[in-house]
Amino acid sequence: MKEPKLVIIGGDAAGMSAASKVRRMHPNREIVVFEMGEHTSYSACGMPYYIAGQVDGADNLIARKPEVFREKQNIDVRTFHRVTAIDTKAKTVSVEDIHSRLSFTESWDQLLIATGASPIRPPIPGLGAKGVHSLSILRTGLDVYDDIEAHHPKTAVVVGGGYIGIEMAEALLERGIKVTLIDMAPQVMNTMDSDMAELVLKYMKDEGISVFLNEKLDKVETDANGRVKAVVTDKQSLDAEIVILGLGVKARAGIADEAGIEVGESGAIAVNKKLETSAEGVWAAGDCAESHHIVLDRQVHIALGTVANKHGLVAGSNLAGESAEFPGVLGTAITKFNDLEIARTGLSEKEAKDEGISYKAETITGSTKSGYFPGSGSITVKLVTDKKSGRILGGQIVGFQGSGKRIDTIAAAITGKLTAQNLVDMDLSYAPPFSPVWDPVQTCARRLV
Amino acid sequence: MKEPKLVIIGGDAAGMSAASKVRRMHPNREIVVFEMGEHTSYSACGMPYYIAGQVDGADNLIARKPEVFREKQNIDVRTFHRVTAIDTKAKTVSVEDIHSRLSFTESWDQLLIATGASPIRPPIPGLGAKGVHSLSILRTGLDVYDDIEAHHPKTAVVVGGGYIGIEMAEALLERGIKVTLIDMAPQVMNTMDSDMAELVLKYMKDEGISVFLNEKLDKVETDANGRVKAVVTDKQSLDAEIVILGLGVKARAGIADEAGIEVGESGAIAVNKKLETSAEGVWAAGDCAESHHIVLDRQVHIALGTVANKHGLVAGSNLAGESAEFPGVLGTAITKFNDLEIARTGLSEKEAKDEGISYKAETITGSTKSGYFPGSGSITVKLVTDKKSGRILGGQIVGFQGSGKRIDTIAAAITGKLTAQNLVDMDLSYAPPFSPVWDPVQTCARRLV
Repeated sequence: MKEPKLVIIGGDAAGMSAASKVRRMHPNREIVVFEMGEHTSYSACGMPYYIAGQVDGADNLIARKPEVFREKQNIDVRTFHRVTAIDTKAKTVSVEDIHSRLSFTESWDQLLIATGASPIRPPIPGLGAKGVHSLSILRTGLDVYDDIEAHHPKTAVVVGGGYIGIEMAEALLERGIKVTLIDMAPQVMNTMDSDMAELVLKYMKDEGISVFLNEKLDKVETDANGRVKAVVTDKQSLDAEIVILGLGVKARAGIADEAGIEVGESGAIAVNKKLETSAEGVWAAGDCAESHHIVLDRQVHIALGTVANKHGLVAGSNLAGESAEFPGVLGTAITKFNDLEIARTGLSEKEAKDEGISYKAETITGSTKSGYFPGSGSITVKLVTDKKSGRILGGQIVGFQGSGKRIDTIAAAITGKLTAQNLVDMDLSYAPPFSPVWDPVQTCARRLV
Repeated sequence: MKEPKLVIIGGDAAGMSAASKVRRMHPNREIVVFEMGEHTSYSACGMPYYIAGQVDGADNLIARKPEVFREKQNIDVRTFHRVTAIDTKAKTVSVEDIHSRLSFTESWDQLLIATGASPIRPPIPGLGAKGVHSLSILRTGLDVYDDIEAHHPKTAVVVGGGYIGIEMAEALLERGIKVTLIDMAPQVMNTMDSDMAELVLKYMKDEGISVFLNEKLDKVETDANGRVKAVVTDKQSLDAEIVILGLGVKARAGIADEAGIEVGESGAIAVNKKLETSAEGVWAAGDCAESHHIVLDRQVHIALGTVANKHGLVAGSNLAGESAEFPGVLGTAITKFNDLEIARTGLSEKEAKDEGISYKAETITGSTKSGYFPGSGSITVKLVTDKKSGRILGGQIVGFQGSGKRIDTIAAAITGKLTAQNLVDMDLSYAPPFSPVWDPVQTCARRLV
């Protein structure tokens, strides 16, 4: 029997993880990957640090290049190829070769949609101006770097105070640029509770970022060369020789939707735990697909590299004939602004409230190491528990070196369905260079038992 | 009804945590604490860093002084008082006032034994010499510091390559002293597997410590003033102007044993989950008492500050009339040598083998951050799982900044009875400054599924 031909749309984390997994299991199967950009398997999350000048060469952001997939793994990766349509009955995709502008049809027995997500760009005048950037595929990150090298901007406006906004504010500051950040929300870091976000805001201001909240982008003004010169909000005009948009992303689910493949309420492609879509023989993985949220027990859209990699591995296993399930996400995320580490997992207090969950929440501020140990810094931990069962629903951490990765202890506790009491009882590690004798995560849990 | 009078033997972590807990619940109960030393509630774990000169003043190692307990909490703390006998029938203790040499009897309704542990000192000629130190109570740490200040030793021998040995080797090196470490075992860090310990050994040697394994201390030689001048092993003589013994500790269970209170096979006082001893109205907590080992499902003796604090809280709750249980330990521990972080939890491969458990073990070496991120260092993770169920039994980590505290993720996973597959699936945090996209702990778990 002929082995099924696998076609993958999208050559980043999810797509290439799946391709590699299938190849490991089946040395001879035909695997074709269409990637609309020039790069495969790159670290989009590394772009702000490349732009900041902290990474030596963009090549370091690339885990594996197309030619390596082709030569070492016999995976037929075709870059600069855009899939324009899926036919789930005929089991084909329509493909455009971006360079030659030629179109063709490719058949498949199995199809994996791993089209990723695209940055949200609201219909605001001037967004197409030179010097206005969104971050999505690796090329967009390289473009920001090249733009800074070519134009040496002295002023920047970052629109949006989420992960990308905060990381890009840090990067631009690092490049010696005067940075103003605006957000239409009343807080930065909307995935955190406002009390935790306040700590981030204060630190960003202390470090020299001008932040304006409750302020909406109205238009971008350009100079005679069509290059951005100012950002106009509903309250003021801000000089800006470069602008970064960090307004979130939406799943690239358009071609799936047009093909009659079910798209969830989140706007991402609906999948079951095996990452199968509603169409026979079609899987979806990564930033274009939904994930099961373990605490909420429903499908959500979370576009993160960790999820994309896990999706890719699970989809790859199933495409290879195994039976793997993706048990879900907690919405764990981490970032930093200069020396301040910021992390979250599970439900925030706001989310618990919005869900109508009867919850308890407590926040403590402690120290990252024993208080007397050199380099000990402050750490604030917030935990949310189910009021009745005591089960941990979520956690947030803001603090200095060594703070952020403590979120993993909370993520593991949620995964293990543990209570605040279990966390208090837990045999966590202690020595003065690493922690107070009660880890701050436990000190917070003690408030909840 | 008169409230029961509580007597506590020992004024460090376990004893004072319990006393404080009882006081919070019962503002008027009589609480008497007998402490044979001069200090209460101090960080014994901080002593090596004080000796290294990294802590500003010994007072910083003291969480709360006796006078504060007396004045702010109305806890009758009597320092320099040694309890010499317990009468479980008469419900009294015999006490010696160390300064006045007067003895007296004190009655109790409830007794908490929190006598701690004492360093093992084998019967070797010359161990009583000036300049030969063991670390136990805070005074012993201050003595080492004072000895270095007074005598400016140029050479040191550390006997024993466990936690204290490694931390003291670091401290003495930091003070500019030439350090030789000897251990009669074939590896340092006997609580780790030999492959992991090898990484520690190599780094210590690279950092300038002379290490001799499989080498036994025979005697200590002194000069005309009775001060140590050399350490003689079964293989050589080593110059030593100061000697630190780090040969482990044994529970101070003598007075309990003499009073007919059951002592476990481990040599520590036997307790149930409520930390009650075999004698009515007598509890034990901290380094003198056994703990339930969650993975082994039997009583063990683990003398660590984290356990002592948790014991104290549980015993305090029960002494106060609540019903609390201590669910047990995993043997989690962490330390560092210079920049190398060393941590373990649960069972090592060696322990799993010795227990006759059918296990799997895998080790990986990865990077602490995304490989391209500045400051990314190597991290080696070893996991041990139950072969049949896949459940995680233990983990060990050796690596650079950010490595050690990852052991808590493994400890939480063991507590939640999770499998290697659960760990692979787990939504852990990722951003380039913190981790590769697959956390090294997960990369190791992937080898085990």
